[in-house]
Amino acid sequence: MSLMLEEARNAPERIRGQLQRNQALLADLGERLRLAEPTAVVTVARGSSDHAAGYFAYQCMKRRGIPVASLPPSLTTLAKAPWRLTGQLALAVSQSGQSPDLVATQHALAAAGARTLALVNTPQSPLGAASDTEIPLYAGEEKSVAATKSYLATLSAMAQLIGHWQEDRGLLYALDGLPERLTRALAMNWSTAIEALTGADKLMVIGRGAGLAVAQEAALKFKETCAIQAEPFSGAEVRHGPMALIGPGYPVLVFAPPGPEQAGLLELAEWLEGVGARVLLAADEGVTQRQLTLVDAGHEALQPLSVIQSFYVMVAGLAAARGSDPDRPRHLNKVTCTL
Amino acid sequence: MSLMLEEARNAPERIRGQLQRNQALLADLGERLRLAEPTAVVTVARGSSDHAAGYFAYQCMKRRGIPVASLPPSLTTLAKAPWRLTGQLALAVSQSGQSPDLVATQHALAAAGARTLALVNTPQSPLGAASDTEIPLYAGEEKSVAATKSYLATLSAMAQLIGHWQEDRGLLYALDGLPERLTRALAMNWSTAIEALTGADKLMVIGRGAGLAVAQEAALKFKETCAIQAEPFSGAEVRHGPMALIGPGYPVLVFAPPGPEQAGLLELAEWLEGVGARVLLAADEGVTQRQLTLVDAGHEALQPLSVIQSFYVMVAGLAAARGSDPDRPRHLNKVTCTL
Repeated sequence: MSLMLEEARNAPERIRGQLQRNQALLADLGERLRLAEPTAVVTVARGSSDHAAGYFAYQCMKRRGIPVASLPPSLTTLAKAPWRLTGQLALAVSQSGQSPDLVATQHALAAAGARTLALVNTPQSPLGAASDTEIPLYAGEEKSVAATKSYLATLSAMAQLIGHWQEDRGLLYALDGLPERLTRALAMNWSTAIEALTGADKLMVIGRGAGLAVAQEAALKFKETCAIQAEPFSGAEVRHGPMALIGPGYPVLVFAPPGPEQAGLLELAEWLEGVGARVLLAADEGVTQRQLTLVDAGHEALQPLSVIQSFYVMVAGLAAARGSDPDRPRHLNKVTCTL
Repeated sequence: MSLMLEEARNAPERIRGQLQRNQALLADLGERLRLAEPTAVVTVARGSSDHAAGYFAYQCMKRRGIPVASLPPSLTTLAKAPWRLTGQLALAVSQSGQSPDLVATQHALAAAGARTLALVNTPQSPLGAASDTEIPLYAGEEKSVAATKSYLATLSAMAQLIGHWQEDRGLLYALDGLPERLTRALAMNWSTAIEALTGADKLMVIGRGAGLAVAQEAALKFKETCAIQAEPFSGAEVRHGPMALIGPGYPVLVFAPPGPEQAGLLELAEWLEGVGARVLLAADEGVTQRQLTLVDAGHEALQPLSVIQSFYVMVAGLAAARGSDPDRPRHLNKVTCTL
């Protein structure tokens, strides 16, 4: 078994421990955020962690009505932006907490008046030390270059933070059941996707709403582990140009879990079928035209986690079917240092 | 000549007229923004207009230190986010000003307390009517499905707004010379790129800083007009996974105009050459290892406009060389309506 698959399979148990260990910290942080609600949030992250930041952004905007801006680190490291962030919250996300560009940015954002928060997996990191508050991810050491359990653990920590901030008992209750749902998601049989994509060299992954964040993560994993040029799009944005790529046999993976975005995604999948695309529709058991089955995560905000958990198992299998080693992506290292 | 090329060639003259006609409006708006600086900015746009919003975001953050968040319209239309935007500025960007999702979002953002501003090309649009202030783009009617002059005119209007807001005489002076520089950019010979890409079905476009916005726009144009799956990346982000795609002969277009990001981009281009990629390096005359020549736009903030002006001419030629009609992209219409 590849390290990547082994780590992806560990995610549910890691998340179970994380949710218990962070309970008091996040209840307290949620209360502090309610008492002094930030006027805006800025996020700082790269790669998979940046996709996770996109999940947080959607949830924070949707539930709190607070805009969330993603800051390119070059604004601070190269452009020396004159940040003015009084009353705002800066959220940095990193598996290693080592990247010097993220650490430098977090320092600059704090100096500009922001409260700073970091989600970091590796204990005693420079990024954690640079932040007012650190939320440990407790995913355990991640050895695979392609992040899996740390990505899932970042999303679960974000959902728990949002749940406490919002005092959303439904979400917090659903989080209790999440490890069990993710364990079921691990066991889904997505061999249809492996068969369809063994010969693919390009494709699209479509999500919408908070689901775009997992479409982005899935597209990156296709690149890292299978050298497939997979590009993520929202179900709305794909209509503004990218559709021109789609002809007979072109593969499109559509993530359509239950929720307000599902109807539009099913309609899009039907249109794609109509123009001859090779559609792989991932949806819950209620959707008879699905090719891939999603486990209902028990709450709208948690659906992206169930989607990506099943996806990780599939993509590790796809890499194996294509004869590539997901633990050794070309040119890549686990920690990337950029300035 | 395709409509697309004809419209791209009109851009410098359209921009000359725009800069004169918007002078008083933007001087006044710039002063109002200085007197009551927004604490954050939110943008609302899709497709090429969303890439233009990314250009504005980078400039606004870099120069004013104000975070800029891109809002997915679905947050308002599907999720009914409880926006709280007192003291913030909402900027909507659209060629047609017709899309119902943008209009609905702009109404909701105004109701949540934001000042609203719209950059629209088509006169008397619903989006203009929904906004406190409208900046007309004066690009003239755009008939081509693939936007060109309206994209360039959006960037020039944004640069003029930033110049007045910042009271940056250097930028405003450079804007006076922009139409002449863009006219020179139109005449650049990028046939090396046409030859290299006539048989391509996928590639990457790399930019950094404000240049990422034109890498995104270029990637979309490759899709729309040539059905090439081109994906944009920042020179930093490409190191976090996407590099795994790159092997011998893989085409990478690198935009490296003069500026603080150039050194890192040249280093990346050299690395890409080293692993055998087919690198197309676009840089100014000072860079001897370039394959494509960029006209210096006369100011750091304007370099992206010169880049995309030369690119549009090349991509229209590439479409012709591949036997496709850039005015008739598969499946697409000029105005896209999403909810």
